[in-house]
Amino acid sequence: MNRTDTIVAPATASGGALGIIRMSGPQALAIGDRLFRSATRKKLSDAAGHTLLYGEIIDPDTGSAIDDVLVSVFRASHSYTGENSIEISHHGSRYIQSEILRSAIRCGARSAEAGEFTVRAFLAGKLDLSQAEAVADMIASTDRGTHALALNQMRGGYSRELGTLRDELVTLMSLLELELDFSEEEVEFADRSQLHRIMTQTNDKILGLIRSFSLGNAIKEGVNVAIVGNPNAGKSTLLNTLLNEERAMVSDIAGTTRDTIEETLVIGGIRFRLSDTAGIRRSDDRLERMGIERTFAAIGRARIVILLIDASLFDLQQTLGAIASLDLQQEQRLCLLLNKIDKLAPEAISAIRQTLASATSCDRILAVSAKHNRNIDLLTDFLHDCIDAAPAYNGETVVSNIRHYEALQRAHEALRRALDSLACGTTADLLAEDIRDVLYHLGTITGEITNDEILGQIFSKFCIGK
Amino acid sequence: MNRTDTIVAPATASGGALGIIRMSGPQALAIGDRLFRSATRKKLSDAAGHTLLYGEIIDPDTGSAIDDVLVSVFRASHSYTGENSIEISHHGSRYIQSEILRSAIRCGARSAEAGEFTVRAFLAGKLDLSQAEAVADMIASTDRGTHALALNQMRGGYSRELGTLRDELVTLMSLLELELDFSEEEVEFADRSQLHRIMTQTNDKILGLIRSFSLGNAIKEGVNVAIVGNPNAGKSTLLNTLLNEERAMVSDIAGTTRDTIEETLVIGGIRFRLSDTAGIRRSDDRLERMGIERTFAAIGRARIVILLIDASLFDLQQTLGAIASLDLQQEQRLCLLLNKIDKLAPEAISAIRQTLASATSCDRILAVSAKHNRNIDLLTDFLHDCIDAAPAYNGETVVSNIRHYEALQRAHEALRRALDSLACGTTADLLAEDIRDVLYHLGTITGEITNDEILGQIFSKFCIGK
Repeated sequence: MNRTDTIVAPATASGGALGIIRMSGPQALAIGDRLFRSATRKKLSDAAGHTLLYGEIIDPDTGSAIDDVLVSVFRASHSYTGENSIEISHHGSRYIQSEILRSAIRCGARSAEAGEFTVRAFLAGKLDLSQAEAVADMIASTDRGTHALALNQMRGGYSRELGTLRDELVTLMSLLELELDFSEEEVEFADRSQLHRIMTQTNDKILGLIRSFSLGNAIKEGVNVAIVGNPNAGKSTLLNTLLNEERAMVSDIAGTTRDTIEETLVIGGIRFRLSDTAGIRRSDDRLERMGIERTFAAIGRARIVILLIDASLFDLQQTLGAIASLDLQQEQRLCLLLNKIDKLAPEAISAIRQTLASATSCDRILAVSAKHNRNIDLLTDFLHDCIDAAPAYNGETVVSNIRHYEALQRAHEALRRALDSLACGTTADLLAEDIRDVLYHLGTITGEITNDEILGQIFSKFCIGK
Repeated sequence: MNRTDTIVAPATASGGALGIIRMSGPQALAIGDRLFRSATRKKLSDAAGHTLLYGEIIDPDTGSAIDDVLVSVFRASHSYTGENSIEISHHGSRYIQSEILRSAIRCGARSAEAGEFTVRAFLAGKLDLSQAEAVADMIASTDRGTHALALNQMRGGYSRELGTLRDELVTLMSLLELELDFSEEEVEFADRSQLHRIMTQTNDKILGLIRSFSLGNAIKEGVNVAIVGNPNAGKSTLLNTLLNEERAMVSDIAGTTRDTIEETLVIGGIRFRLSDTAGIRRSDDRLERMGIERTFAAIGRARIVILLIDASLFDLQQTLGAIASLDLQQEQRLCLLLNKIDKLAPEAISAIRQTLASATSCDRILAVSAKHNRNIDLLTDFLHDCIDAAPAYNGETVVSNIRHYEALQRAHEALRRALDSLACGTTADLLAEDIRDVLYHLGTITGEITNDEILGQIFSKFCIGK
């Protein structure tokens, strides 16, 4: 990416009443002047920053008008990119859009690559790399959760936190480097217990950020929920009731659902990805066996598993067997859902609940009727309670970007090594090397340390015009 | 449509880097102030017109930030609608868009109906009705032709022409009304030969506009071209070659094309809608018979007919029979296209051309090879020459709106009646009635005469946010 030329791109999707074309770079105002003509003969290059001019865009070759437009003028350092920029608001026709783009390119602008405006903003120091990444997350945000994470990160909450960690480590480095300068004198400038304290505190904070990825990732990617149970226990009916729609094919024939169907349900601003799985009974049918394999894959991915039990066919041993066969990990949550309670007397339901409560150690036992939409709200409450999204909504730093997560893990490993070295009474130079590693990995997150390859990878996922 | 409240709507399609939300009405700045917060505590209501403010949009209920935005401020009479207006440029997420809209409505704005911003512009006298209609045509424009028509109409070229006609008729009316005021004295204030001259001139101009609809409609709707000929003459191959793509199914079996396929080709900024028809031979096959019926329907609609003749199977009588069976009207253009010339010697081709030229009266005879793309450019030249689009590109008034066309026809009829009355030496009051009719119909075009029903019909076709 050449950063001295002037770039142009549409910033809006086609099909609306208005379209916006964005141009940024050293020649943005000069090229704009060649395209723009106003009744009052005002020039864009004479306009103050943050003002709007009304006029027309002219084909530079023929001199004929393309559209009546409003042009926003942004002056260098006060613009998004930090460069002189204009935004042309035109009638939302794809023909007009392409004519204006063609004219701008004819006058010397170049088609911007994906994310190139934001790359320039980053390179101009208008935002750091994690903030730049958050811009793409803002545009992609679909619900309260993803929006809250992106907004906090874009506002630099994250950057400030990492900045504090870096500052402490840099202080520590300078102490160690002083020691290295005077290494022949064998003086310890850096108090080892102070080093240990700072490194432990930093490590704790990094571990906190790493742990927050569990929530951040759940919010960003959605929370996987597997709905499992015997064939005909009512899994598809439950999914339909939850979604209030007839999405899954429902029938009375056991084993109807051959494939996993995934649907999305937003509760409290968090997306839950519900997998309606094939039943988990043994089968000789090849297709059905493949479905069962997929069921176990879905269970493996799930953060929450809902085991559906037909209350009218309840059998404790079978249920315990089913729970065991799920092979859940410690961090997975399990809800036992007694379904079809309309077929039993309330006393019978209570008895089954008590039996289950004393014989199992699941997270919640609920008695519902999926078909008649009874107590389904208790299930959505349970899903909601499984994810404590408060940190995201309270503006705490929640890591949601896997690139950041991996960098934090590497920083933690380097810090772990440094702490081990410190415990062994190692020399300042080895210690300094590990601390430098920690600083390096933290620096890749906010972009103090970066290269064109990393930038290319990050910004290629952006949309054109941002 | 209530015109005293404040309306809000998205003006861009979702899916882009940016989105624009537009708000207009007496409370636009006050509502904007409740939503907007800038670091410098600037208020939108204090901002000068045509300036941009950077800040954030706040949820009015929770006080939490929704997005970092740029807000454009437009002051009454200098805005598009003539009212105080703002445009909020936000990150292009549908969630953010709906949150901002929800917040604006929470503060007292109302969701705008389709075209409601332009309705307000019309009612505020910022543009007349034909200009307002041109705004929708601008947004829908897809090529040079539709764009030129819409731009000229939006700029008011049309309105000026109609205005001149109206002025002359109004002068004429005032003379007649003077006569009516003094009717008892039997004085003729209006010189009858002067009346006749003005009315004839006006009628000629209206007829000119009516005739221009032929071009305007062709540009707006596309020019229908029917490609006909014996089965296996190469119609589908010709279409593919014209379109440079394998759109139509091509095979060596006669009668392969059962249905008419329509494709669009833009030549010189004009869209040609090419119908590849089923062959026109007699058939007992029911499906094929239906195809042939559709062929004749396509020929009936076509402005240009291309009769494809397999040069290697040329038979004059059969060709003359085919031409006769087309049953073309005077305004339809016919091109005889000798195909498969690669199969014949050049002398044989020349002989067939001469035979055809002396025996028929078609508009053009061309010899081509559709399969080998020989001389196909001569066919596109012919299509191009059939439509003289110069008036549209030179900014002349070309009627493209069927509502205007119908109003002009009614105005012409009323003027015709008035001229007849004048010839019969009728009284001033009857004459005045006809002239009033002419003025009425011309007035409906630019909207001097209108009502909510007409406005509703026109603007319901607009997009939301315009």
